[in-house]
Amino acid sequence: MTRLLLVNGPNLNLLGVREPETYGTATLDDVVELVRVTASRWGLEVEAVQSNHEGVLIDAIHAARLTCAGIVINPGALTHTSVALRDALTGVALPVAEVHMSNVHRREPFRHHSYVSDIAEIVVVGAGVQGYAFAVERLAGLVTGPATP
Amino acid sequence: MTRLLLVNGPNLNLLGVREPETYGTATLDDVVELVRVTASRWGLEVEAVQSNHEGVLIDAIHAARLTCAGIVINPGALTHTSVALRDALTGVALPVAEVHMSNVHRREPFRHHSYVSDIAEIVVVGAGVQGYAFAVERLAGLVTGPATP
Amino acid sequence: MTRLLLVNGPNLNLLGVREPETYGTATLDDVVELVRVTASRWGLEVEAVQSNHEGVLIDAIHAARLTCAGIVINPGALTHTSVALRDALTGVALPVAEVHMSNVHRREPFRHHSYVSDIAEIVVVGAGVQGYAFAVERLAGLVTGPATP
Amino acid sequence: MTRLLLVNGPNLNLLGVREPETYGTATLDDVVELVRVTASRWGLEVEAVQSNHEGVLIDAIHAARLTCAGIVINPGALTHTSVALRDALTGVALPVAEVHMSNVHRREPFRHHSYVSDIAEIVVVGAGVQGYAFAVERLAGLVTGPATP
Amino acid sequence: MTRLLLVNGPNLNLLGVREPETYGTATLDDVVELVRVTASRWGLEVEAVQSNHEGVLIDAIHAARLTCAGIVINPGALTHTSVALRDALTGVALPVAEVHMSNVHRREPFRHHSYVSDIAEIVVVGAGVQGYAFAVERLAGLVTGPATP
Amino acid sequence: MTRLLLVNGPNLNLLGVREPETYGTATLDDVVELVRVTASRWGLEVEAVQSNHEGVLIDAIHAARLTCAGIVINPGALTHTSVALRDALTGVALPVAEVHMSNVHRREPFRHHSYVSDIAEIVVVGAGVQGYAFAVERLAGLVTGPATP
Amino acid sequence: MTRLLLVNGPNLNLLGVREPETYGTATLDDVVELVRVTASRWGLEVEAVQSNHEGVLIDAIHAARLTCAGIVINPGALTHTSVALRDALTGVALPVAEVHMSNVHRREPFRHHSYVSDIAEIVVVGAGVQGYAFAVERLAGLVTGPATP
Amino acid sequence: MTRLLLVNGPNLNLLGVREPETYGTATLDDVVELVRVTASRWGLEVEAVQSNHEGVLIDAIHAARLTCAGIVINPGALTHTSVALRDALTGVALPVAEVHMSNVHRREPFRHHSYVSDIAEIVVVGAGVQGYAFAVERLAGLVTGPATP
Amino acid sequence: MTRLLLVNGPNLNLLGVREPETYGTATLDDVVELVRVTASRWGLEVEAVQSNHEGVLIDAIHAARLTCAGIVINPGALTHTSVALRDALTGVALPVAEVHMSNVHRREPFRHHSYVSDIAEIVVVGAGVQGYAFAVERLAGLVTGPATP
Amino acid sequence: MTRLLLVNGPNLNLLGVREPETYGTATLDDVVELVRVTASRWGLEVEAVQSNHEGVLIDAIHAARLTCAGIVINPGALTHTSVALRDALTGVALPVAEVHMSNVHRREPFRHHSYVSDIAEIVVVGAGVQGYAFAVERLAGLVTGPATP
Amino acid sequence: MTRLLLVNGPNLNLLGVREPETYGTATLDDVVELVRVTASRWGLEVEAVQSNHEGVLIDAIHAARLTCAGIVINPGALTHTSVALRDALTGVALPVAEVHMSNVHRREPFRHHSYVSDIAEIVVVGAGVQGYAFAVERLAGLVTGPATP
Amino acid sequence: MTRLLLVNGPNLNLLGVREPETYGTATLDDVVELVRVTASRWGLEVEAVQSNHEGVLIDAIHAARLTCAGIVINPGALTHTSVALRDALTGVALPVAEVHMSNVHRREPFRHHSYVSDIAEIVVVGAGVQGYAFAVERLAGLVTGPATP
Repeated sequence: MTRLLLVNGPNLNLLGVREPETYGTATLDDVVELVRVTASRWGLEVEAVQSNHEGVLIDAIHAARLTCAGIVINPGALTHTSVALRDALTGVALPVAEVHMSNVHRREPFRHHSYVSDIAEIVVVGAGVQGYAFAVERLAGLVTGPATP
Repeated sequence: MTRLLLVNGPNLNLLGVREPETYGTATLDDVVELVRVTASRWGLEVEAVQSNHEGVLIDAIHAARLTCAGIVINPGALTHTSVALRDALTGVALPVAEVHMSNVHRREPFRHHSYVSDIAEIVVVGAGVQGYAFAVERLAGLVTGPATP
Repeated sequence: MTRLLLVNGPNLNLLGVREPETYGTATLDDVVELVRVTASRWGLEVEAVQSNHEGVLIDAIHAARLTCAGIVINPGALTHTSVALRDALTGVALPVAEVHMSNVHRREPFRHHSYVSDIAEIVVVGAGVQGYAFAVERLAGLVTGPATP
Repeated sequence: MTRLLLVNGPNLNLLGVREPETYGTATLDDVVELVRVTASRWGLEVEAVQSNHEGVLIDAIHAARLTCAGIVINPGALTHTSVALRDALTGVALPVAEVHMSNVHRREPFRHHSYVSDIAEIVVVGAGVQGYAFAVERLAGLVTGPATP
Repeated sequence: MTRLLLVNGPNLNLLGVREPETYGTATLDDVVELVRVTASRWGLEVEAVQSNHEGVLIDAIHAARLTCAGIVINPGALTHTSVALRDALTGVALPVAEVHMSNVHRREPFRHHSYVSDIAEIVVVGAGVQGYAFAVERLAGLVTGPATP
Repeated sequence: MTRLLLVNGPNLNLLGVREPETYGTATLDDVVELVRVTASRWGLEVEAVQSNHEGVLIDAIHAARLTCAGIVINPGALTHTSVALRDALTGVALPVAEVHMSNVHRREPFRHHSYVSDIAEIVVVGAGVQGYAFAVERLAGLVTGPATP
Repeated sequence: MTRLLLVNGPNLNLLGVREPETYGTATLDDVVELVRVTASRWGLEVEAVQSNHEGVLIDAIHAARLTCAGIVINPGALTHTSVALRDALTGVALPVAEVHMSNVHRREPFRHHSYVSDIAEIVVVGAGVQGYAFAVERLAGLVTGPATP
Repeated sequence: MTRLLLVNGPNLNLLGVREPETYGTATLDDVVELVRVTASRWGLEVEAVQSNHEGVLIDAIHAARLTCAGIVINPGALTHTSVALRDALTGVALPVAEVHMSNVHRREPFRHHSYVSDIAEIVVVGAGVQGYAFAVERLAGLVTGPATP
Repeated sequence: MTRLLLVNGPNLNLLGVREPETYGTATLDDVVELVRVTASRWGLEVEAVQSNHEGVLIDAIHAARLTCAGIVINPGALTHTSVALRDALTGVALPVAEVHMSNVHRREPFRHHSYVSDIAEIVVVGAGVQGYAFAVERLAGLVTGPATP
Repeated sequence: MTRLLLVNGPNLNLLGVREPETYGTATLDDVVELVRVTASRWGLEVEAVQSNHEGVLIDAIHAARLTCAGIVINPGALTHTSVALRDALTGVALPVAEVHMSNVHRREPFRHHSYVSDIAEIVVVGAGVQGYAFAVERLAGLVTGPATP
Repeated sequence: MTRLLLVNGPNLNLLGVREPETYGTATLDDVVELVRVTASRWGLEVEAVQSNHEGVLIDAIHAARLTCAGIVINPGALTHTSVALRDALTGVALPVAEVHMSNVHRREPFRHHSYVSDIAEIVVVGAGVQGYAFAVERLAGLVTGPATP
Repeated sequence: MTRLLLVNGPNLNLLGVREPETYGTATLDDVVELVRVTASRWGLEVEAVQSNHEGVLIDAIHAARLTCAGIVINPGALTHTSVALRDALTGVALPVAEVHMSNVHRREPFRHHSYVSDIAEIVVVGAGVQGYAFAVERLAGLVTGPATP
């Protein structure tokens, strides 16, 4: 069965806990569940990883090279600082969907640049947890072809 | 019946004609139809406008102030240059979803900045015509509440 | 009878409607009336134009070349983006008074630069609708000479 | 009786003497007189200070905290360099009107930025000595209410 | 018969009227006539448009997609600000010759950048109305082949 | 008993070993001991972590969310590069005191910016190991109230 | 008896009066008293100066060259603009401790740079009046040696 | 007989040899011949110099001060780096036509600036060898008056 | 026996797998073997580490402080982002040779700056796996003296 | 008898005292004496002022408007920060010679820009006290004509 | 017999003479000899040129187009300023190895950019005269194939 | 007999010919004569070189290494562009006096930076031909000691 990798970067384990006015009340478990449900409608499995360690995320992306067909990623703060994460994504050559739950364009200037966007297929910003679902649907369309769920 | 305004900026009338390797083969009519169908699943009507004249777009946005509940907009090239369009959007105080079919982050640097993103609820980049559908769904969720279609 | 051209740029038709905390409650009609009353005290007529179309504004400025003695302009968002409007103003070679109702220096950085200020005789910022009256009085002084109303 | 503070910064004692092609022929005394006359029409007294010493200006502003209802200021060259003057103005929490007799936007780039504008109520540029009168009228309107002189 | 589109941007209707020390005394009609005569020597017809409305120019360029073989354009002030015009030109995929009558490199810094130059075949700057003739000849050479008139 | 978290970033395990001319001869153990002694005078316990792994530091900060009342942090080189660490600190919403032993303002320009300073309560620079003691005292004041040790 | 110079820059005479939400309610007298008490615990006398006149501050620093052993300075707004103050400090070659009561890193960008920090021994930011005490203690340590009060 | 100086800068001796996809197949001899033929139609002689030595070019320009009536120059790479060449051109006070065969606006950013353009009468970019002919014709018009060949 | 540390940063475990057109077909094992062989010709042992975890690399560098005589490092993406890695290298005070297999100067601008180059003895760019051998030889020369293998 | 004004800015009273390795051992009195002696050789008197107060310097320059024929100025740190001093100099319209004893180009970047240089007749940098003598001689030549002392 | 061109730029004739602490004691003759010996081990001849004249270097590179198989170049100061040299190298389309004996990354910022690096095959920095030998070996490998000397 | 080298850069052979309003009417011969006369008063000989070829200037500077005691240089346009000239000057390790006849600070921004100033002993700007004499006197003082001519 085809599989997607879901990557959540540093601090996203605090979802639903930290700064709900910015990030909402859904937890990381809610996100993973939503992604699984959405993916299953397209016949796709989901491998999920969250870590505050850049290296763990890179290792997981490397591991997906032969086992997954696409990557949904919310790199968190690493979006703006990690060339290593970018290189991991281009290194495994899988289609990437970048998700940010809050509208980064309304926040500090250093959050306006992403090292991932120009190597991603799509970028969804500000749609809360639904952004993950959108991302899965788009990747699914690319991976499984035009048939809808 | 609740209504959304769909705004397409300059040159988007050429969709499916100009630079298909960048913008795909769907036409503007296809986009409008997709938006209508998606919106109707949420019980929403769609008012659609496309123009190469900034003033026409601003007039249409003003007109939507009392008749529409949200705006889906692909400002085309005006994304990067029009403060007037931005002011029109903030002036009518409706929720905005910004859509770009191609991945602007892969293109010229002057396309990396948007005068709309920080006043939009969501931004969807690189998802082709499906980006419009995502945008409608997100706006519908904001406008009609959590019930799904 | 000597005449002034009053130019109001995009979105100023929303005066009194949009963002009253920024722009106050006076409407565009109130502005035009205030300008007419002030001008009449100096024996001046007023030609007024507002449009959301840059081209309409440029055409009106061109038309004023032989019929008006000065221009009071609030270019709205075009202040910050339109070289064409600037060129129209220098092209007709009339004295220009630039007015901004809100204090643009308190707003986004992209509103801190004006393509009009260095070709204007005076710039009045943050004085609300009274700024228009100030501008008329100053232009009147330049046009009709030192005699006061 | 309500009082306004009139502050003129460095070199403005040379008004009417230095560079008349830029600053006109009115002297500092003319400016003070014009401000007094204009203010008196609104029932306001004027306290006037000019100094080439930044510290004297700051001391005067501090002194106005409990004795004046507003400040008309032409900071001269300190406009572009003095954070201390800015802090003095915000420290006394009085409404401020900033005046520049010449059009600073036509001069050297280092004159295009003001440390005062974003904390002022209004800014009047290029209106010569009349700019002071405008400023008084605007402050008077804020201080004494909508009644006109 | 093969046809060229001649596009003149905002304020070029003032040619021969505004700022003759910068733009010379030839009128827009003179320019159009010169372009027609030059083109006819190569067996080419000319379709001419001038507008102060960006949208009208874009519409005209779109219309030329199937009817013209090349575009001679003096975008006026839009040279420096309009991504929409640029996108219209790339959208119709015709060879473009950019003309500026005055030497823009001697003017304000914001006139030193062009959104058209890197998508044009040639750029002619500072040659007055003769620049249009040069542009027609060069485009004619590209369109009709190496034979000279 | 109330507890503070002491966080030391990458390479601070080399304290007293590497570059004594810059960092002095005190070791990391000396720092921890000083912090413990100072904190105990305010009736506070100390949890100490040092790691060269950004992820370990983030995990420790997360763990402190419910167990500690404040954070004393010397982020080392991560000061200048880690948005993830910043987000961890804001995520747990505890008061933060930032400490740098050497005077970073005398070093390379890339050390002049800190991703932590604007979210910290206080910043102490250049005071050597005493900076940690200062930081504890200030945090203690915030946490335990005005009573002195 | 060894002596420290305490320098407070422009507007700090308003302490406890202006903007208490930023600067707290302690007055300048409170600051001087706190500094005296802290210094006396180390056997140090204090010479205190506050002025809104840059020149007065420079003169005081010069005077301290032979009479004081260190300088505690809160340059206020001059922090960001005065090279002359910096040169006075380096000119007398005494150890300097820089203090800012509020967290300047949370304020306007022009407050993020200091002309003093790279010539100071320590910098304490955001610790309110306690920052002065910290500074005295650190200077005392440098001046009187390792013995604690 | 009136004479023009034709100056070709470094590496233009490789014309027709190096990078034909950028510079075409015409050789430097072809360029010189085209310039001579074009000039002769206006009754003008041509003095031609090409060198990879900046000093040789400057010497040749100096020599032209009393013997030539205008200069056609393709400075090659010196366009972007040589103030000395610019000074030579202004020093001899002859009208200058600047030619670039390729479209420098499509190339590296360091080729977008020219030290010659703002002192030239005209600039022709991207027209291949025909650009030289255009330049000669324009200079001839300036030198010999409006009569056409 | 004298020892060198060979450090390979994030994603270099994918050597020979990812993007062979950029990085070639040699694997990380090939690199390590080449380094060992080259070093052994100089009588040097090699300790090799590769990790996607910045912290692991820093720990390894710290460990080398007393056991190795020099460091050959290809920091991968951390070259451009990691001050912590830089500080680890300066902290252990061993001679460093920086290697990049591809020519980073031909890639994205964010790869043109290195936090390591100015603290390294040598930098070798674009020489593929041979760059490692060069680096070893150079370090060997520094470590073992002028005698050649 | 014709007179020159000699202006020395903040901290120059410390000449010969502060930082002799940068400024040498000559005192301010030595400078004034040298200037007097040099001037007297041209039949010129000298009025000398030094102050750490910008306002005092401006007042002195104003006073020189009618009594002096030229100004020799070493503005010290105000060189880099004071627009007010610049305006005073242009306000009195006397020829100005700018002197810096040390080579400011070897010092901090903020000392590389001068607000005085572009309004001065000459600038002498790095010549120690002799720079003053050079400046007097040059001004004397301008003031008294070509006759040498 | 296959040949390499060795190019040394301005001031490299002073090798071993000027600034030995930066460049070492080897002379230019030593460099040429080392390059010859290294090349001969690969069966390659060497043509060597050094000049302080940019034009001479360009001429030599042009001459190598048909006679050499690769270029080892230390452009000296021209590295940072000469587009003409860059164009000469790309014009002859030979593989290039760039060598800098000192570590340019430790020197002035204007030495951090090279106009050659992105068109070179390899760049060797800081390896002293050995850098030339490395460069020859690498070029030899490219020119003669994988066989080792 | 001790000797100085006088270096004049490109276009200075045109002195007295080109742009007299900027450079005056003195010729290069006048400059050389003035320098010789001034030098002879200090018992110094002068070696003079002027060239439009950077390489010739560098060669002359190299030649001066063993024969001259100091260098007076007006690098002309090379001031702003030539790192090679700078390196030649530092390479021969002689004291340098930089002279510019016109006030470069009043001219184009690209003339505000000098590659020579921070390696020169003194810089004299705007003093016309007298600047050379000042430079000689200063160098003579450094070379021959404090005795005056």
